[in-house]
Amino acid sequence: MAVYTQLSAEVLADLVAEYDVGELVSAKGIAEGVSNSNWLVETTGSETNGKRFILTMYERRIDIAELPFFLGLLDHLAANGCPVPRTIHDRSGASSRMLHGKAVALIEFLPGVSVDHPTPAQARSVGRVLAEMHETAQDFPGTRANDLDPHASARVLADCGQDALAKIDAALPDVIPVAEKIADGWPQGLPQSVIHSDLFPDNVLMLGDTVSALIDFYFACNDAMAYDLAVTHAAWSFSGDGHGYRAEVGQALVEGYESVRALSPEEREALPLLAQGAALRFISSRAQDWIDTPADALVTKKDPMDFVRRLEFYRTNGTEVFAA
Amino acid sequence: MAVYTQLSAEVLADLVAEYDVGELVSAKGIAEGVSNSNWLVETTGSETNGKRFILTMYERRIDIAELPFFLGLLDHLAANGCPVPRTIHDRSGASSRMLHGKAVALIEFLPGVSVDHPTPAQARSVGRVLAEMHETAQDFPGTRANDLDPHASARVLADCGQDALAKIDAALPDVIPVAEKIADGWPQGLPQSVIHSDLFPDNVLMLGDTVSALIDFYFACNDAMAYDLAVTHAAWSFSGDGHGYRAEVGQALVEGYESVRALSPEEREALPLLAQGAALRFISSRAQDWIDTPADALVTKKDPMDFVRRLEFYRTNGTEVFAA
Repeated sequence: MAVYTQLSAEVLADLVAEYDVGELVSAKGIAEGVSNSNWLVETTGSETNGKRFILTMYERRIDIAELPFFLGLLDHLAANGCPVPRTIHDRSGASSRMLHGKAVALIEFLPGVSVDHPTPAQARSVGRVLAEMHETAQDFPGTRANDLDPHASARVLADCGQDALAKIDAALPDVIPVAEKIADGWPQGLPQSVIHSDLFPDNVLMLGDTVSALIDFYFACNDAMAYDLAVTHAAWSFSGDGHGYRAEVGQALVEGYESVRALSPEEREALPLLAQGAALRFISSRAQDWIDTPADALVTKKDPMDFVRRLEFYRTNGTEVFAA
Repeated sequence: MAVYTQLSAEVLADLVAEYDVGELVSAKGIAEGVSNSNWLVETTGSETNGKRFILTMYERRIDIAELPFFLGLLDHLAANGCPVPRTIHDRSGASSRMLHGKAVALIEFLPGVSVDHPTPAQARSVGRVLAEMHETAQDFPGTRANDLDPHASARVLADCGQDALAKIDAALPDVIPVAEKIADGWPQGLPQSVIHSDLFPDNVLMLGDTVSALIDFYFACNDAMAYDLAVTHAAWSFSGDGHGYRAEVGQALVEGYESVRALSPEEREALPLLAQGAALRFISSRAQDWIDTPADALVTKKDPMDFVRRLEFYRTNGTEVFAA
């Protein structure tokens, strides 16, 4: 939650002039994004491009070579009616530019707020939009491998080491053998598309019960659609710290999804393990971040145990939860 | 530069419902303000109150008992045509409310950007608007003492102590006797009004060469108008680190001011010392903040030496710079 780079009004005005969006009127650094800096930018506007935008500067984690995939995906989805912000291209047609040695993109601003405590009606909407996104992304030509699959996650945990994990929580090293089991049994051959793979509530903007935008596609990759549903289930259906499964929310999410795209028997059968893999993915990245983050750093560390509890829940109750 | 408090969309929606502004559409925490948290809020709007606002939560430094002064001042200035954001009052007529034990205010959003490298034309506009603000504030009924006058600043520096100051910079303790001299000779009886007293470039929003808003009045107090001009001169007329006086900018600022409100001979004569007092005010608060801030804290410490250089400049060149 930070703006890592300061950009003067003069620099921002020059940047904005590279786009057909009119002149700079306002720019506020916003406290969102852990891998990039973001500004809410207002201009005098143009007929084609409107006048409010998110300017993103890519600071970390994102490989610039992958930006055409991420930004092209936004354009493909937006052009086909999905509620995602489109990328504003500059006057030369480029979707990103370099500024002070970093890549920046100007992205459509969409209204909506991220809910903290989703209702079943909101989860139903999210499921529906997720399925629509999966179907629309089927004919997106770009591809990107999932570098956070359960094999990678199991390896990350093993590399952290028993001792370092135990320092975070005494129960955390127990996940290592579970991770290997999940990776070994990982389902193959499920229908794929480009998936979001990180659809937490803060990556969904809502107006009431309606999804106004899916945002932050920087983990998007080609993988099983049912896995994306499992990630979203793990992200939406629990109280904040992973205690307390909210059955009505989880159920509404899957129902919403199936109202657009029915799950095959193989997908439904795979969901309990896919959900464990989803929990594993966040356990491993959070454990690694925890270990890599200095004790006095300014970021709020996310507790991997929140997702250990979810993993345990899916191991115990997954079959029942995802029964048709 | 932070958002100190997280507010869920649900809490924000409930808060917004207390005002005649329509329903919540968007809220982004913005990376501004060191003593408070701010959100850029959009609503469906109402005819009287528009639809874009800054929501401020007062976190530190500001005494809640003083909020009626600060917010009432905004309303007085805005109602009389000064470019300052007005306060949106809630349905009961209150200008601030309590939320989670902290005071919050909903304030009109005004366009504009803060310039880093002001041009003379921009400085002229700022001078003009500052003078207009002083004249308009003459009949504002509220009063607030300046608790950062040179006597207070001299005391703060002395309380920091020679050793602590020397740790920041070997030359800093030399300011202690200078501070006493400034305080002893401080001019009395100059014409007063409510002054902004902190009008740095980031507290002015501009559209081109036009001032669209003066913001952040949380140091406003009753004091000499010429002192406010001196503060603004010290804040606007130097390159960032206090090296390099930008004569054209400083001159344009004073000319702009005088195009609205002529300085009396006494005010003009006092300016060199007032400017030294202005520099002193920021030296002392920065020195104190420097000492009070843990080495590993997340805030960027501001170097008091930037203003020691300005102080030296005004001691050497003040008479010449402010000659009619």
